[in-house]
Amino acid sequence: MKFLPAGVEVSAQSGRTLLRSAREAGIRVRQTCGGQGTCNKCAMILREGTVDSAQEGAVWTDEGGTTWVLSCQVVANPGAVLEIPAAAALAAVTGGQGVLTEADEEETPEFDPLLAIRSLELPLPDLQDNGDDLIRLQTVLTREEGTVPGISLSALRKLPLALREDGFRVNVLLSRPPGSSLVGDVWPRAEASTTALGLAVDVGTTTVAAALVDLEQGYTLGAEGEYNAQVTMAEDVISRIIYAEEHPDGLAELQRAVVDTIGGLVRRLGRKHGVAPAEIKVGVVAGNTTMLHLLLGIPPAYLRREPYVPAASRFPAVRAGELGLNIDPEALVYSLPAVASYLGGDLVAGVLATGMGRREETTLLIDIGTNGEMILGNSDWLIGCACSAGPAFEGSGIRHGTRAVPGAIDGVRVLDGGREVEVAALGARPPIGICGSGLIDALGSMAEAGVVDRAGKFRTDLPGGRLLRGENGPEFLLSRKEGNGIGEDITLAQSDLDNLIRAKGAIFAGMRSLLVATDMGVHDIDRVLIAGGFGRHLSLDKAIRIGLLPDLPRERFRYVGNTSLKGARHCLLSRRVYAEALAVADRLTYLDLSLGPNYMDEFVSSLFLPHTDLSLFPSVGRVAG
Amino acid sequence: MKFLPAGVEVSAQSGRTLLRSAREAGIRVRQTCGGQGTCNKCAMILREGTVDSAQEGAVWTDEGGTTWVLSCQVVANPGAVLEIPAAAALAAVTGGQGVLTEADEEETPEFDPLLAIRSLELPLPDLQDNGDDLIRLQTVLTREEGTVPGISLSALRKLPLALREDGFRVNVLLSRPPGSSLVGDVWPRAEASTTALGLAVDVGTTTVAAALVDLEQGYTLGAEGEYNAQVTMAEDVISRIIYAEEHPDGLAELQRAVVDTIGGLVRRLGRKHGVAPAEIKVGVVAGNTTMLHLLLGIPPAYLRREPYVPAASRFPAVRAGELGLNIDPEALVYSLPAVASYLGGDLVAGVLATGMGRREETTLLIDIGTNGEMILGNSDWLIGCACSAGPAFEGSGIRHGTRAVPGAIDGVRVLDGGREVEVAALGARPPIGICGSGLIDALGSMAEAGVVDRAGKFRTDLPGGRLLRGENGPEFLLSRKEGNGIGEDITLAQSDLDNLIRAKGAIFAGMRSLLVATDMGVHDIDRVLIAGGFGRHLSLDKAIRIGLLPDLPRERFRYVGNTSLKGARHCLLSRRVYAEALAVADRLTYLDLSLGPNYMDEFVSSLFLPHTDLSLFPSVGRVAG
Repeated sequence: MKFLPAGVEVSAQSGRTLLRSAREAGIRVRQTCGGQGTCNKCAMILREGTVDSAQEGAVWTDEGGTTWVLSCQVVANPGAVLEIPAAAALAAVTGGQGVLTEADEEETPEFDPLLAIRSLELPLPDLQDNGDDLIRLQTVLTREEGTVPGISLSALRKLPLALREDGFRVNVLLSRPPGSSLVGDVWPRAEASTTALGLAVDVGTTTVAAALVDLEQGYTLGAEGEYNAQVTMAEDVISRIIYAEEHPDGLAELQRAVVDTIGGLVRRLGRKHGVAPAEIKVGVVAGNTTMLHLLLGIPPAYLRREPYVPAASRFPAVRAGELGLNIDPEALVYSLPAVASYLGGDLVAGVLATGMGRREETTLLIDIGTNGEMILGNSDWLIGCACSAGPAFEGSGIRHGTRAVPGAIDGVRVLDGGREVEVAALGARPPIGICGSGLIDALGSMAEAGVVDRAGKFRTDLPGGRLLRGENGPEFLLSRKEGNGIGEDITLAQSDLDNLIRAKGAIFAGMRSLLVATDMGVHDIDRVLIAGGFGRHLSLDKAIRIGLLPDLPRERFRYVGNTSLKGARHCLLSRRVYAEALAVADRLTYLDLSLGPNYMDEFVSSLFLPHTDLSLFPSVGRVAG
Repeated sequence: MKFLPAGVEVSAQSGRTLLRSAREAGIRVRQTCGGQGTCNKCAMILREGTVDSAQEGAVWTDEGGTTWVLSCQVVANPGAVLEIPAAAALAAVTGGQGVLTEADEEETPEFDPLLAIRSLELPLPDLQDNGDDLIRLQTVLTREEGTVPGISLSALRKLPLALREDGFRVNVLLSRPPGSSLVGDVWPRAEASTTALGLAVDVGTTTVAAALVDLEQGYTLGAEGEYNAQVTMAEDVISRIIYAEEHPDGLAELQRAVVDTIGGLVRRLGRKHGVAPAEIKVGVVAGNTTMLHLLLGIPPAYLRREPYVPAASRFPAVRAGELGLNIDPEALVYSLPAVASYLGGDLVAGVLATGMGRREETTLLIDIGTNGEMILGNSDWLIGCACSAGPAFEGSGIRHGTRAVPGAIDGVRVLDGGREVEVAALGARPPIGICGSGLIDALGSMAEAGVVDRAGKFRTDLPGGRLLRGENGPEFLLSRKEGNGIGEDITLAQSDLDNLIRAKGAIFAGMRSLLVATDMGVHDIDRVLIAGGFGRHLSLDKAIRIGLLPDLPRERFRYVGNTSLKGARHCLLSRRVYAEALAVADRLTYLDLSLGPNYMDEFVSSLFLPHTDLSLFPSVGRVAG
């Protein structure tokens, strides 16, 4: 069979679904239900040939005579030609997106790397002082490191000759996790120097980012990002846990997928910076608790079952070879510790990268995704929670929702009382859907223009004809099919708005719960830091207008980028930061919202635009009043 | 080509020496010079066909018309048939020889094994107590162990399901080196139990012995011994170091050879006791410093070069897989620490097994081989040395010397003033040579009978015709060719006696040096323990008569067997004994005999039978007087 527009020819394997065949051919197809045939995101157009399916409704013809197939539910017969519509295809992550850049660096950790090269000159042995080579090395290193270093067998095998090649002057490669040290390599000082290279990785549910760090000089060579290849198996965290449970070998598939994604980033970084992957000698990984379980191949089943128990929160350091990762197989890979099943090492990394745990002022760090995860605190205390926002901000659960890919609408202006709309799409491409920041902009603009009321319901008497009658009620027209990239109108339905309002309500209620738990008011928050790819295109005013973010002076807000990757990088650069990660995970109080009495009340109060309690949003009151 | 009497057919590979071809065919051939063509031990009889050699004197015909070839120096042409004479073939080690038996066990260490199975019942998680599985496990184990245990990735992967299969009741396999612990496996308590099996190994230069130990019940299933396969490459420690240096891949060959020897013992033990090798989950190895370097694949070159520096004395624990050893590849293999280049972990093991480091009384532990290694001390102090005795006691450097194999003369009575001799050979077989204990018996008997004078020189006027005229002077006839297994007279030449006297002198001088260094007299020694295979057949009276052992009341002497293997086994059974090993290696003072002023004087004084100072040997004086 053949896939369009990629033009990839695939020989149909018996019994393989179209979705699986496409995935195996390296074509990324969107879906959110884990291949259960329910989300309809993976639908393709059958251009030629035939397909088989045992599933009712898996093949249908639309009004225009186009035949659609649900690719997760059908098997293609030889000769079939399938077109993957733009909405179903996952675009490649464009360079730099969601990826660390030096510009938004906040804290620079004290340079004391997890892996270091030490240049040593050992006292020469003689008959009076003929202790062994290893003791000689350990004595000098113990003075410098404060711990007696161990040695790998491979380094010990090289030690006697390396010492005698250049008069007991050697360089050693030293792993230095907090409280211990290990000599992993040794070579004569006269020999060309190996560089101590480290890899920082943020394993996100959607995107994986990696930075290559020179641990001898302490600078970042570069960073790259890519979709997590697990996306093609199941889109969100819960679907992936189910995939791991229900597919034979599902966990192994997911494990390989994310390792392959990281491996691809390693190869890209290697090519760009002239580094062979095997030269990378240490890794630090941050990610949410589920992603870490999947990366390490630990069954994640109990993360989603009451009482929501992870297999581990502090993960053991493992060898890259044990993971199948393409850096030096002996390299130790450290993971940032998690706090709970739904508050992971990515947020702990955020605390490190922003330095919020070292400051007197009180910071709110928010990472908005399917889960809204947030941490509030300062040098005295830290408290965090995760609220189930649903996937609306990631474009799921919204009929024309999409990720922040080229063609995604990320800016919406509603003009003339709802008669006109201007949209801006990423990459100046014809619109294909609307992404999270676009949704916030749209809802905020619609609220300001009076297209929706305070409860987020459409004004049924809206003038100007933009309120269409859809299958399930009214829809607001954003982009006509004539001018966009998908050949159908892009609209927002009432159900889309309801989803969006529940999502923003969940997040605001979570923040309010943190404040209640610490007996603080909104204005006690000195800084609000927005982490993650989501924040980059966010309209701050609109986010406050709809009641997603608190109504604070705008200068207290800051976009801090991928703090998960930054935190991982800080750990590479400073063993003290890595030690701090363990301490932060220990002292961070996890507020389980499902246990408290307040959360549901707060949530219900937050299902308005911006909130039932307008006194919480004085600036909105002024404008709307 | 074909080897007799084994009848093994080998296709001649071009350029391969006969010795190498024989070795590759699994036939063990004796040699002591590392294939340099100097020891002549590997000579074979050419029965048919031809050989090539570039080496003068590598092929010769004896008086009886038999053609001999030096197998390390010749290449056989196709069709050649070689007979390996009994003296050149290495016999298989017979069952039990040099091997631990329960009967000669001395100390029973407190049972606190290096590897243990712990049966645990963890508190069930609920929403109020939903810490992760690993923390739950660690909390309970930390209470029992006093350290926070780590966990292997493979065990962590099994943990969540194992816990939930039997209501959070699990068994764990716990590695427990001093000061730390690691969970290596976990399974539901309801499942059939894995046994915690450990392997204790003594890697001797000549013989390797291994014991299989049940660490759940604390008993030894069995023990086996075998020649170290390295023997066929080079016989003694120094030749092996040279072999590792001078042969391409020599170190790797030696490493594989000893690992294969241990592997063969593992298979034998496994078959006998119904254990799959992969069920063995931990190992402890004792051996001299060179053997440990070779086993771990560490270049040993500098052990034999001034200032005699080992690469390491405390060896890191390594995975069996890293060594290529056929037990569980994840099993940790611990090595007993060495004291110096020529005082190894085998002696440290001896201190542990005999408990001499815990006792108030003063013990002298002697292990006689090519090196005479000995340790003197008690619970307050320990001092040790190694004296280069030469290989006489192992049958090398003695024209008709042999190891303690079947046919080796191990008992000699000289009767009627040297006119008659009775010999006893091991296994009641026709004599093929004389082994170390036989040499001591012979020299002692000859001294008593007046065949030799106090300087160990033959009485030239010996009556009875047993003193033959050999090529290089007089030889004393022990066994006529008519009645023995090699078809030539077995004799002792003056040069043999001189070698033997130098060997015994070296050992006695070493002991005297230890006494001088600690300001003690011979009679302050409360116990003398003879370790190693050598001691089993030793005539104590004759050993004192020739001045090898001190003249103390006979009840102070004891044969203690293979204390190296026992000590390794004690470490398996008790992590405290393993910790003691590290402490013993630290507190043991190494007396370097080459640095002291006394040793040469003591040595020269010891080149008499029994000694220049007869007052040191009152019982000999009484008899001889």
